[in-house]
Amino acid sequence: MSEEFLKVAHAAREAAAELAPLPRAAKDRALRAIADALVAGAKEIIEANALDVDRAREGGTSEAMIDRLRLDEDRIEAIAQAVRDIADLPDPVGEVVRGSTLPNGLELRQLRVPLGVIGIIYEGRPNVTVDGAALCLKSGNAVMLRGSSSAYSSNTALVAIMQAALEPTEVPSGAVQLVPGLTRDSVKELMRARGLVDVLIPRGGASLINSVVEESTVPVIETGVGNCHVYVDADADLDLGVEILLNAKAQRPSVCNAAETLLVHADVAERFLPRALAALKEAGVTVHADPGMAVHGEVVPATEEDFFTEYLSLDIAAAVVGSLEEAVAHIRKYGSGHTDAIVTRSQGAARRFVQLVDSAAVAVNASTRFTDGGEFGFGAEIGISTQKLHARGPMGLPELTSTKWVYTGEGHLRTSTGTVIPACGG
Amino acid sequence: MSEEFLKVAHAAREAAAELAPLPRAAKDRALRAIADALVAGAKEIIEANALDVDRAREGGTSEAMIDRLRLDEDRIEAIAQAVRDIADLPDPVGEVVRGSTLPNGLELRQLRVPLGVIGIIYEGRPNVTVDGAALCLKSGNAVMLRGSSSAYSSNTALVAIMQAALEPTEVPSGAVQLVPGLTRDSVKELMRARGLVDVLIPRGGASLINSVVEESTVPVIETGVGNCHVYVDADADLDLGVEILLNAKAQRPSVCNAAETLLVHADVAERFLPRALAALKEAGVTVHADPGMAVHGEVVPATEEDFFTEYLSLDIAAAVVGSLEEAVAHIRKYGSGHTDAIVTRSQGAARRFVQLVDSAAVAVNASTRFTDGGEFGFGAEIGISTQKLHARGPMGLPELTSTKWVYTGEGHLRTSTGTVIPACGG
Repeated sequence: MSEEFLKVAHAAREAAAELAPLPRAAKDRALRAIADALVAGAKEIIEANALDVDRAREGGTSEAMIDRLRLDEDRIEAIAQAVRDIADLPDPVGEVVRGSTLPNGLELRQLRVPLGVIGIIYEGRPNVTVDGAALCLKSGNAVMLRGSSSAYSSNTALVAIMQAALEPTEVPSGAVQLVPGLTRDSVKELMRARGLVDVLIPRGGASLINSVVEESTVPVIETGVGNCHVYVDADADLDLGVEILLNAKAQRPSVCNAAETLLVHADVAERFLPRALAALKEAGVTVHADPGMAVHGEVVPATEEDFFTEYLSLDIAAAVVGSLEEAVAHIRKYGSGHTDAIVTRSQGAARRFVQLVDSAAVAVNASTRFTDGGEFGFGAEIGISTQKLHARGPMGLPELTSTKWVYTGEGHLRTSTGTVIPACGG
Repeated sequence: MSEEFLKVAHAAREAAAELAPLPRAAKDRALRAIADALVAGAKEIIEANALDVDRAREGGTSEAMIDRLRLDEDRIEAIAQAVRDIADLPDPVGEVVRGSTLPNGLELRQLRVPLGVIGIIYEGRPNVTVDGAALCLKSGNAVMLRGSSSAYSSNTALVAIMQAALEPTEVPSGAVQLVPGLTRDSVKELMRARGLVDVLIPRGGASLINSVVEESTVPVIETGVGNCHVYVDADADLDLGVEILLNAKAQRPSVCNAAETLLVHADVAERFLPRALAALKEAGVTVHADPGMAVHGEVVPATEEDFFTEYLSLDIAAAVVGSLEEAVAHIRKYGSGHTDAIVTRSQGAARRFVQLVDSAAVAVNASTRFTDGGEFGFGAEIGISTQKLHARGPMGLPELTSTKWVYTGEGHLRTSTGTVIPACGG
């Protein structure tokens, strides 16, 4: 590892140890100082951002991507407000998750504690630089930020302003670190920094996430790939089916909880599909399906690849299934384990679908779009985990913590030896 | 991956999907059938085990290792009883972890669900084959077992008996799988089976665990390495200090929650060390320390390596520290994040030690030996996690589960679009 990287990683580690025991009030003061500094430094940030935008434009980046990269006063105010909102949330650290007095009188408590140092690898959105830092600080963690090289000037300015804002506060300024360097090497260093970095959270598209998962020795929390399904059951209220389908697909097509595949039970296909296809067409959605579906409305031919695809656009794959079990098998095979919905009036079908679908969230007679930290009442969200370990579904502040067992006695000694052959040791 | 491995992995995956929704009663019946079959098959198991024992003896394996490998009727009865005890435990699956009705009327619940397929990589203890399988089945998971090649005959017999016992039950017999092959290749296959295996739990010594952590793309839960400390504070009750030290070191030296290092505050070193060293000597413990400590009693010279060492024997490293903060720094540098104890009468010192020590468990005026699933009241333990993600400290049945969000509406559609720039997607 480069000396430059190690310097930053060790600084983050030291800051994490200082930050972990701080009370909520100290962290909130620091977050408000950051918010104020961002607003005060808007001019500086916009100037740095202009360098990134110019470079992107020269490089032929699409206007949509440039729009994501671009910062202006309104956006900086919104970013600062999000930091203030995070300051207003309860502190997860110190929460007693479980606790009891053991039969021998030992007082046992399981407490929430910070994870330590969190690495965030993300794409060209400079708002993640601030949002990620604020969520980590609030949960008592130091953060190492590795954004896209396309936003390097913006990120450098944002981190400098945040560090300067922390200077007079109790939160050590080293708790926010930008991973140095613009090349892929610095991503690799972050992924191999086991022991220095406690967890990596990649935020972005599927290819970014997959490469981190493949190469990292630091534990990873996968987030955000959503190939979500809406299954219209034989017993569905078809009006409701059309409404939920349209909301799930078209209300905001570019996000991970938008639907990407429609599955229809064969028993209702003839009644449902003509209405569904007409409604999708009117909403500007292209339907990718077996050409046989064209008898019910407008479709373009689908390949198997379509069913694996997270379009994030006004496109949807569609198929007819012979049974609920076939729908579940389809979801297991092609889905990403994010959110899958059933539309049905049958209590039995709903129960079975909930039991059999192995995803972070299962929706019954509701749009997939509700799988969201804000909608769930978390107040903030670092991403939506599609993995099974540690956190699954929308991740709020508690998901950025670990726990620690504390037991207090008055000279308690163990008398039993335990199992003949223990799980550990010699 | 070899066809043989893939066949077994796919069988486990299919069985996991069938097993996940089964109610507790079905799983308990299957576990009792396994317990009965093990007792009934004792002769067969002992014959297979004799092959392993003979091979080990010819290979010059130590008698201590052979003792761990050896099975007899009493041990098989104890193994079967452990399976019955696991059947008696509550089922973690289906527990509602959190739940609420959202302001829009959507009913939100977070349910415990099985992880799916759990891989266990372990050393020459055939009891882990049964114990690991029973814990996984009870928590609704299929299991892929990869024991030491030294126990391959025993493990083959045990798995065959368990699979046959499952045949007439509702639990699919494919839910218990022995990873085929005796070479390191099959361990590699298990470690690279991301998407087929949901989590890997290595059970054994530090080198096994480190190699799995380094090479695995499947998420790993680290268990069991314990370099535990006893810190005797300036305000300690010294009688209590000697008792806790002796219990933590010598009550069962071969396990991960035994103490490996003594740290003594300089203010009490002169009064504490003569008594502590004498008591340790009487218990047969060798003390590794700076030769300067020899003025207080018998020590052998320590190198820095001693402070990193998990002895698992009647050895302990010892050092004098200038302050509580120095003790914490020592623990952070040399410890393994398992369990660290403070002996003190000072409420302030205890509070500070608990806040600053970043370990799975912190003991106040109690022996480190209490960090144990049995002592904590979990009823069973798959290991003690020393990592921060997912589970930390003793792991019981709930730690072998994930969660799933379920939300139920009556045609709920989302109307807000959420944050301007979402955490996911386009």
